[in-house]
Amino acid sequence: MTKILSGKEVAASLKEKLVAEVEKLKESGKAPSLCIVMAGDRPDSASYIKGAVKRCTDIGIDCHVEKLPEEISQDEFLEVLDRLNNDSKIHGIIIMRPLPEQISEDVVKYKIAPEKDVDCFNPINVSKVMSGDSDGFPPCTPQAVIEILDHYGIEIKGKRAVVIGRSMVVGRPLAMMLLKRHATVTVCHTRTKDLAGEAKRAEILIAAAGKARMVTRDMLSEGAVVIDVGINFDENGKLCGDVDFDDVSEIAGQITPVPGGVGSVTSTVLAKHVVEAFKQQEGL
Amino acid sequence: MTKILSGKEVAASLKEKLVAEVEKLKESGKAPSLCIVMAGDRPDSASYIKGAVKRCTDIGIDCHVEKLPEEISQDEFLEVLDRLNNDSKIHGIIIMRPLPEQISEDVVKYKIAPEKDVDCFNPINVSKVMSGDSDGFPPCTPQAVIEILDHYGIEIKGKRAVVIGRSMVVGRPLAMMLLKRHATVTVCHTRTKDLAGEAKRAEILIAAAGKARMVTRDMLSEGAVVIDVGINFDENGKLCGDVDFDDVSEIAGQITPVPGGVGSVTSTVLAKHVVEAFKQQEGL
Repeated sequence: MTKILSGKEVAASLKEKLVAEVEKLKESGKAPSLCIVMAGDRPDSASYIKGAVKRCTDIGIDCHVEKLPEEISQDEFLEVLDRLNNDSKIHGIIIMRPLPEQISEDVVKYKIAPEKDVDCFNPINVSKVMSGDSDGFPPCTPQAVIEILDHYGIEIKGKRAVVIGRSMVVGRPLAMMLLKRHATVTVCHTRTKDLAGEAKRAEILIAAAGKARMVTRDMLSEGAVVIDVGINFDENGKLCGDVDFDDVSEIAGQITPVPGGVGSVTSTVLAKHVVEAFKQQEGL
Repeated sequence: MTKILSGKEVAASLKEKLVAEVEKLKESGKAPSLCIVMAGDRPDSASYIKGAVKRCTDIGIDCHVEKLPEEISQDEFLEVLDRLNNDSKIHGIIIMRPLPEQISEDVVKYKIAPEKDVDCFNPINVSKVMSGDSDGFPPCTPQAVIEILDHYGIEIKGKRAVVIGRSMVVGRPLAMMLLKRHATVTVCHTRTKDLAGEAKRAEILIAAAGKARMVTRDMLSEGAVVIDVGINFDENGKLCGDVDFDDVSEIAGQITPVPGGVGSVTSTVLAKHVVEAFKQQEGL
């Protein structure tokens, strides 16, 4: 029988620890605080923000959404960011992307204070993920993958991990994070010649290709751990992952569902990063 | 018959192009310039500097070695660096490492101007290697590997590349660079369980483990391309690579020797980076 790796369970466990920790930290008279910056109005951003704010608030983190007009100039945007960077009451900052077209991500990413950059936008944090420095903040989604593996006691060290996808949001940083944890890591992508052959070698398979149900049973070895990072909608508008869950579920040893898998953990990882940022900045 | 991939040939070809390019660029009335910063006196650094200065000078690059006392304080060191960063006549800067113990690499690396950082010390350039931005400077050694593959017309796209070693100087950046060039990349290291099995799958095998002659014929598939980044001395004090050259040379399709392989190309890559930095900074 395939074991389900429940993201909800992982999130609940992380949350419990964070609630207790934040309660204790608040005895200092200060509270961790997150600011989410959104220029313009996108339905997907609004839905992400709603989830993140609820999760963080539940944990005891103050949340503030800095709503900016769609047409804000880059200079004005950077002024706002500068104010937030220098506001000692704000410990974590997330900038919703994509930004309006008049604002360059390549400019903005250098301006977010690295110590408040809880979702790895600033290149300084990107480089820390690559070098394995643990004082930076890796992006929340790959960190959620690691949290799931750790929660269920799945050993990473010495394992053959195969990552499908090489994005800067998941595939590449996750490859570096698995490498830091001593996995032997293979990164596959659209140009990989024998994807099924590569995937079949995985003891831990991470699907982060962004393609609905692309991972099928012929790509899996009996007993493999399958982590599905995909969030797609199929032809009937139904939410699904990169893995064909029904097809592989007899083969996989353990598997995350979609929904209820990796996506359920990311906002809690965000909260964890805000709490870490708070401790670092307040010297707690 | 195994074909030898001659680093000397690659370096000579790169040099020829650079000499012509620099000659043309000098018509602007300006010349590319490299400054090598060395605090203290280490025989291995001195030998590296000698080689780099000779190669750069031959290409028409002005070279200057900034020799600093071993006991220089971190503040004084940073003052010197700041002066070099702001000197418009200097286009590339290399800081010899390891630095004396009173100077923190983790402080200094953030202070070298990214646009002059021709060997990827500054985290901004590290993050560009990870994200595949081509306007940064990757470290010279992994770039030398890419130059060798390109010179000999060895296709990277779609190939299975296996990198042995996960250092920040070679393994990790090279994995990202091969990924950018659309290889399917596996990174192995000391904790890899079946190293021979992984290596045997390589169409392109990169040995960057820093262990004398560790790659033997049982780890290789017939016809594989073998790039040896190792620079070691064996028990008899003889220079050798990470690959047991004699043992594998009947199996490998193409192979770089040591000496005369990757190491012969790095100083020319350094020169190439200085010329690129010069063009960027002078808008040529």
